[in-house]
Amino acid sequence: MLTCDFAERLAVASVAAEQAQFDAVLVTPGPDLRYLIGYDAVPLERLTCLVIRPGGTPVLVAPALERAAAEASPAGALGIDIATWGETDDPYALVASIANASRRVAVDDHMWAAKVLGLRDAMPGVDQVTAGRVVNEMRMRKSPHEVQALQAAADAIDRVHAAVPGLLCRGRSEQEIGRDIAELIVSEGHVRADFIIVASGPNGASPHHEVSGRRLQVGDAIVVDIGGTTDQGYCSDETRTYALGDPGDEYRAAYAALQASQAAATKAVRPGVPCETIDDAARTSLVDAGLGEYFIHRTGHGIGLQTHEEPYIVAGNVRPLEPGMAFSIEPGFYVPGRFGARIEDIVVCGPDGAQVLNARPRDLVMVEP
Amino acid sequence: MLTCDFAERLAVASVAAEQAQFDAVLVTPGPDLRYLIGYDAVPLERLTCLVIRPGGTPVLVAPALERAAAEASPAGALGIDIATWGETDDPYALVASIANASRRVAVDDHMWAAKVLGLRDAMPGVDQVTAGRVVNEMRMRKSPHEVQALQAAADAIDRVHAAVPGLLCRGRSEQEIGRDIAELIVSEGHVRADFIIVASGPNGASPHHEVSGRRLQVGDAIVVDIGGTTDQGYCSDETRTYALGDPGDEYRAAYAALQASQAAATKAVRPGVPCETIDDAARTSLVDAGLGEYFIHRTGHGIGLQTHEEPYIVAGNVRPLEPGMAFSIEPGFYVPGRFGARIEDIVVCGPDGAQVLNARPRDLVMVEP
Repeated sequence: MLTCDFAERLAVASVAAEQAQFDAVLVTPGPDLRYLIGYDAVPLERLTCLVIRPGGTPVLVAPALERAAAEASPAGALGIDIATWGETDDPYALVASIANASRRVAVDDHMWAAKVLGLRDAMPGVDQVTAGRVVNEMRMRKSPHEVQALQAAADAIDRVHAAVPGLLCRGRSEQEIGRDIAELIVSEGHVRADFIIVASGPNGASPHHEVSGRRLQVGDAIVVDIGGTTDQGYCSDETRTYALGDPGDEYRAAYAALQASQAAATKAVRPGVPCETIDDAARTSLVDAGLGEYFIHRTGHGIGLQTHEEPYIVAGNVRPLEPGMAFSIEPGFYVPGRFGARIEDIVVCGPDGAQVLNARPRDLVMVEP
Repeated sequence: MLTCDFAERLAVASVAAEQAQFDAVLVTPGPDLRYLIGYDAVPLERLTCLVIRPGGTPVLVAPALERAAAEASPAGALGIDIATWGETDDPYALVASIANASRRVAVDDHMWAAKVLGLRDAMPGVDQVTAGRVVNEMRMRKSPHEVQALQAAADAIDRVHAAVPGLLCRGRSEQEIGRDIAELIVSEGHVRADFIIVASGPNGASPHHEVSGRRLQVGDAIVVDIGGTTDQGYCSDETRTYALGDPGDEYRAAYAALQASQAAATKAVRPGVPCETIDDAARTSLVDAGLGEYFIHRTGHGIGLQTHEEPYIVAGNVRPLEPGMAFSIEPGFYVPGRFGARIEDIVVCGPDGAQVLNARPRDLVMVEP
């Protein structure tokens, strides 16, 4: 991202904060801070807090010992003021004096409770609301630069999935396979692995299983859901399902229905279509195949500087899709004690339909045992 | 940790919550949840929340799709109730109905603001306070099992520092050195690297510098502050300062004063001594050497399931040390535009003084250029 990108985001946030009647928006280290000023500060106990005031200049409150790090970040080129505090100062009073709020302040959605309540106590009588209705509204619509960054992340995780069949063989444990995948996630273009799910056989029935000591057996289906973060801060997230040998007729038939479900949901993407309609497209397809009761989660989540962010593709979310919204489409089925499956791509809503960022084949990948 | 460790922690927390007059303690994924029930859940947008009620049985509220993962964690053996919610249910109402609070609830210090405010809105009229005064009080006093876990982490990071001199040579960049250190942190016994500071030459003057493209020059001092998390969840954190060739008489004299400061602070550790006295011991030593103005941060922080936690070794903290408290002792000096230095060990307060967990020599390590 360029300095002008951040300057524009700050300007948009300031106007949106004024429209929302926020006296100030308070943003601590995390994805919102990185989005707004490019400062990828580590969330720690010392208070760092960007104060955005409608009509005023943003001020970054930071510990004195972080000044050099803040100035070295893209924030340094933005010309925002940096107000520092020493080890025995009260940073909450400092933020309160700069925010100068009388009615309502917004706090970033991921701010730690200790800081939320510290700011509450430093600003008696001021109502706190979440900043998400300003910042999430901005973050969920990706710019062309951001779509490029998500495409780079998708390409990187595609390369990892391309290597997964070579890691699967009888007797290897999920943990061993997971360690190899962790190395591949970094070597193929991420700065870190965020999550690694290798769910074999009956473990596949737990959508958020991670890895265990279970060793692969012939006939296992293996759900591999993996993701990482690139140096630009954008996340990848892709699921493919593999099988060691033949998982059986019943499984293959269910998988074919899942593949149809994932395709139907992807096909339903276009501007103006409510998020819940995408969920419904995936779900109806599985219900028709008699698998509805086994699809126990929503169809997807937005993605960007976080693996999970708005918009959520879930029943009840009537928000219409807009160009630039990026999210996962990941139906699955989970039969307790027996097996599971999931297919997941990241897509971006384009003017005429879904731009699918992941390119690996969606067929069940059967590996010779 | 054993199931009985967690059961005891839950019992202690319940009693402490009653004494603090909390109707309930609400704990979302993060270090407090891992400490209390061993469930290392990833913090995500779906609400997972442990509800501890004085005199009642703890209840873990979790998304339905996380039930299997929760049961597979140590929490599964604890016999606590798990109440799950479906994708379109309101989990905040569910927590409110279980907490059944009328006056005051405590929320874990790291709970995300969106959840803090969601719970606030679901429990109108109920005051929110931070759970730290219950949970931090427990976490800051380490059990023998925890000290063992911290020793294992310290041994692992000692092995990494032992390899650092071999990574330093003229013309290598901080980033290149940092990448090698990241691999070593994992290969020497951590599940992940948490932070890597390689601050060479003038970059050493920024205490929280990370890595940059700057290449080592002869005469550079290099501050290397690194840490990771082990499979048991406990953190390492150790700083040593290296030099490529001779950094000069002035630097060596200042470093000798720093070494005396770090030793003086370590020697001051014993039960009953206030935290700020340890800070004062380190600071007085540097002030006497004419370096006081360059020691711009507190002397240390507690460490355990987080790299930074209570107790903080800082002026104004009159809390007396107790056996089992674990923290860093890390004075430094930072001369803007010129150089910096820091020496950091993790120590545990023992009955008669400091048990120093890190064993690497504290002398300035001069590497042949």
